[in-house]
Order: sequence, then C-alpha cells, then structure tokens
Amino acid sequence: MKKYHIAILGVTGAVGQEMLKVLSERQLPIKKLHVFASKRSAGQTLHFENQDLTIEELTGDCFKGIDIVLSALDDEIARQFLPKAVAAGCLVIDNSSIYRLNEAVPLIVPEINAEDIKKNQGIIANPNCSTIIGLVAIAPLHQRYSIQQIVVSTYQAVSGAGIAGTHELEQQIKELENQDAPTIDAFQYQIAYNLIPQIGGFDAEGNTSEELKFQNEGRKILHHPNLNVICTCVRVPVIRSHSESITLYFDEDFSIEEVKKLLSVAPGVKLIDETDDIPYPMPLEASGQDLVYVGRIRKQKINQQTVISLWCCGDQLRKGAATNAIQIAQSYIEQN
Amino acid sequence: MKKYHIAILGVTGAVGQEMLKVLSERQLPIKKLHVFASKRSAGQTLHFENQDLTIEELTGDCFKGIDIVLSALDDEIARQFLPKAVAAGCLVIDNSSIYRLNEAVPLIVPEINAEDIKKNQGIIANPNCSTIIGLVAIAPLHQRYSIQQIVVSTYQAVSGAGIAGTHELEQQIKELENQDAPTIDAFQYQIAYNLIPQIGGFDAEGNTSEELKFQNEGRKILHHPNLNVICTCVRVPVIRSHSESITLYFDEDFSIEEVKKLLSVAPGVKLIDETDDIPYPMPLEASGQDLVYVGRIRKQKINQQTVISLWCCGDQLRKGAATNAIQIAQSYIEQN
Repeated sequence: MKKYHIAILGVTGAVGQEMLKVLSERQLPIKKLHVFASKRSAGQTLHFENQDLTIEELTGDCFKGIDIVLSALDDEIARQFLPKAVAAGCLVIDNSSIYRLNEAVPLIVPEINAEDIKKNQGIIANPNCSTIIGLVAIAPLHQRYSIQQIVVSTYQAVSGAGIAGTHELEQQIKELENQDAPTIDAFQYQIAYNLIPQIGGFDAEGNTSEELKFQNEGRKILHHPNLNVICTCVRVPVIRSHSESITLYFDEDFSIEEVKKLLSVAPGVKLIDETDDIPYPMPLEASGQDLVYVGRIRKQKINQQTVISLWCCGDQLRKGAATNAIQIAQSYIEQN
Repeated sequence: MKKYHIAILGVTGAVGQEMLKVLSERQLPIKKLHVFASKRSAGQTLHFENQDLTIEELTGDCFKGIDIVLSALDDEIARQFLPKAVAAGCLVIDNSSIYRLNEAVPLIVPEINAEDIKKNQGIIANPNCSTIIGLVAIAPLHQRYSIQQIVVSTYQAVSGAGIAGTHELEQQIKELENQDAPTIDAFQYQIAYNLIPQIGGFDAEGNTSEELKFQNEGRKILHHPNLNVICTCVRVPVIRSHSESITLYFDEDFSIEEVKKLLSVAPGVKLIDETDDIPYPMPLEASGQDLVYVGRIRKQKINQQTVISLWCCGDQLRKGAATNAIQIAQSYIEQN
C-alpha cells in the first residue's frame, strides 16, 4: 500500500494541535509527517507517536515531496501559501474559508458528500465548523425527506477563536474574581458571564460572515441550491464544543420514530435520548469526541408542514475542523 | 390620592429582593410596605427607603388590611397561600406559574395588554420571564403585521433558578479552579463552561415546561389563539439576563426600516443598533435595566413570507419578574 508524506501547516494553533492528536489516533498510511509553522516556532520539537518532530518554517518552497497538506492556516496566510503547495503537486485540504465557495474546489463532509472529493483540482476545502456540526445532524433527514428551510441558533465555544479565545475566557474569570477589569482582546466584548451575538464581520443586511456560511456552504455540500437558512451565531462562555438549536421544515409528513431511527444509524451521529447516561447533548460531553451528539428531537405539525426541532453539540476543533480534514484525507486515500 | 398597603411574599428570594429594589425606585402610593417570608427568615430586618422593615412570617391569616399582594412564592407555596389572600380581599399579583392559564385570571405584560387587568377576580398573573422578554420585543410587530409563527431559542441566565443558581455557577468555577469536582445541586448537570438544554420537566412530546410557556402564555397575552411557537430553552453560564434568538414569520411584506421605526418607539423596548455605544444587545448590558434590549434585526423573504430575525436581552429578575409585577400594580392603581 502506498504511504504518504503528510504535512500539517500551522501546527502550533488550536486546530493544528488537534490535527496532530487526531492523526495519532487514526491509522493513516503515513510515510513521514512534516509539521510547519511560522518562523517564530520553527526549530521547536513536537512529540508524535514515538517520534520527535521538528517544526519547520513555512516557506514558499517547503512543499517538495509532500503528498497531502493539511492546512490550519488563517485565511490570509492560506491565500499566500496554498497555491504554492498545489503548484508543487500536493493535495491540499484547507481549513480556511477562502476556497470553500470556489466552484473548482470540493467542499466536503465525508459522511455527506465524500464522492465530491474526486472532482478536486488540487484543493479540497474543509467547511466552517458550525456548518459541519449542524449538517452532520441534519443531512440524514434531508437525504430522506428533503429539507425546505432551516432556522439555526448557535452557541459557540470560545476555542472557536483559537487558543487566544480560551485564554481570554480563563483570564477574564480570574480578573473578575480579583475585581480587576477584564482584558478584552480576542473578542469584541467581555465573554465571561456574557454572550456576544457576533462572530465575524457584518454585511449590509446585518448578517455576520459566520451566519452566511451555514446557507452558502450547506447548499454546496447538500447539493441543494434552494436551501434557505436563517442563522444566528452567538459566542458563549463555554471552552469547547459548539451547540446548535435547529428547526427544520419539511413538506412531507413522517413520524418522530422514523427520525430517531434514521439518526440512530447515521454516520457521524450519536443519538442521545432518555435511554443514555445523559438525556440530551451538552458541550462538556461532546468535547474530545468525533461524533456529533444529537438529541431533544421534537416534532410539530404547523399548517401543511412537518417541523422537526433538535439540539446538537459537536467538538468544533475535532469534527468541526481537524477530524473532518483528516477524514477527507482518509477518503481521498481510499478513493485513490 | 388613595394610598395602599402593599405586601411582598417571599421577600428573601431573588425575585422578592428585586421587588423591594424596584419598589424603592418607582413612585407607588404606598401607605405601608409589608414583607413576608418563611418562619426561618421572620424577625430579620430589611432596609427600604428610610425605613427598617421587619420580615413577618407568611401565614394563612397574615393578609388582613393588605390591599395589593406581590407574590414571589414558588408554585407549591403560592397554591397554599394565595387563595387566602384573595379571600381576605387582596389583589394578588402572582409571579408563580399556577394561575397563568386560568381563564379567570388575566395574564399581563402592561406594555401589551394592560386593559385585561380589569377582568381580574382577585388574581393577576405575571407571565414567565422569557415569555415576557420575548413578547415585549415582538408585540409591537405583531400588533402591526400579525405574526404567523415564531421560532425562539433562549440563552437563560443561572439567576433564573434563583439565588441558588447564581451561587452554584460561582461555586463550580471556584471548584474547577481548585481541580475539585463541581457541586451539582441547583441544576441537573455542571453549568460552568457548559450548556444545559433543559429548564423544567419534560412532557410526552419531549418539550420542557419552560418551552411550552412561550406559546401558551403568548397566545393569551397577544389574544392570538392560533400562534405557533417553536421554542428551545437552554441554560447558559451567564449570571443575569436572559437572551433570545427569535425568528418571526409574517404573511405581509414590509421594510426593515419600518420594523426598526416601530421598535424605536415601542414601550419597554430599547432598540440597539450600530449608532449605539454597543452595536447589539448583550446580557451584561441589559442587567439591572427595565427595558428589553432588541437588536440584530434582519429581514429575509422566503417563499411568500417575510421573515424577521432579532436578538433580545432582558433582565429576567426585573422586567421578567419584579418590574413587570410592579408595573401591573401601577396600572391597576391607575385604572382604579
């Protein structure tokens, strides 16, 4: 079996660190793992399985001999370096948002549209974290009944803003205990004991960039160009795992037992109900897991429509980023 | 002008304490304020304006001579004592849930349906806290355009569970810092750095009692028996003020400027937009306020419907409980 030179770009960030962890858990045919970061971190040593890996500096000509690039770079740096990786013949799996809506770039959640991987021209995009988590929960229902419309409100953890986000919540809690003014840097306002209904910048209609991703990326991943999504994204003082309150509208009627049965066998989903240790998903429980926890499933009939509500939680650093990227790599390797 | 003997029942709880504070801020024609609590607290002294008030024991025959009773008692104790207050001739304004859907009892948000007060037969019910906060934000739109359907996801503060809720969050944060296991008592699970999608008990369809209140109480308050509400209630690690992500469906079309104009002059609403110090409502900002902060207003056209999304925050101990009860008393006094 072919073995691959795999590289992680941005290995010192929250997602890069998680990629290293997920790679060590999964059996990929790795010939050699290369880890890259900015000049500042170059030369440092990382432990991976039984090896010590030296962080190399990310440069324009560091991609020779690499087969698969897992990129956890920010948008701006991704834009600068990823074309060079493609030119060097790498398959790039990109966690940034810059290529996601590019028609030449497949946007993949392996449980949903792994077959789109083969359309790649050197880059495969990893979707937005809250989009991945929500879609894993609802795609099994869409594939069976066709969703007309989605209303989603998110409850997003501070680590979605990287290591700095986690640090800021912890620091603010300590500062408030000492009756010091909380340091505000990673987020727009105090996040400790507060909620911030803004993730990303605003468009002219008042939507944040994070809110637009669910519809835009969801349409592409589900191959459903008319999907309507009404999305509100909120940062909450939780360290890890995003949660989502989702309401789905269908034209068809069906029973809630059917919904639960579909979800109980859906790939990537852990259905949580009263028969489990916990009766519903919570971010603390979903953290460190690769499955999206789905529960609180309810059905209403309103006018001619069947309305399903559910609540899901997923680790946005794992399934929402690192795990999904590595699952894409696994699917790519299997398809080759 | 007539002056009233006013009593607070349950004065030592989170809502009772807030009633005392709100009464001291507002100019009610009080002849004498009487404060009642359980035997445990009886005899203690409370400061109110320039007086020292002695807490009296709540008993079945403590209501003689009282004109208006503001009750912050729990459901069970309310059920035991409030009929005795009515029998003694008091007007009872009840913050518990036991009478809210009783047809003989008006359920009042003074900004919306103050005229229903006169139908009272001795008891007026104060609605559920998240229902009050959401309805203050949306009633001005319903009155103009008629809402067909509401989807609401709540982000509810720990003080909604009383002083014990606040204490538990603070205690858990300290315990986790010391690497001790968090004490779990007021809530079902750890709330520090977590979310709990359960407030109240479950019905057979999987709805919590808190989730059913928005539709049931909303229909009564808005005089809109066909209103459909899809509600998901979630406890978040915020000390004070409930927040709500609300999506509203209308058959009529209108501009977002019209919506903002309506909300900018709506009673009880503080419209927050990019022209304010903060660009959107946050629970930290709404805390200690009587107005419901409304912002993040967006419009979409989906099929034949106009869909408005908004985000609101309100202090659930004040407008969601104490302030609303005292506004009911004020309206009652004015109407007499």
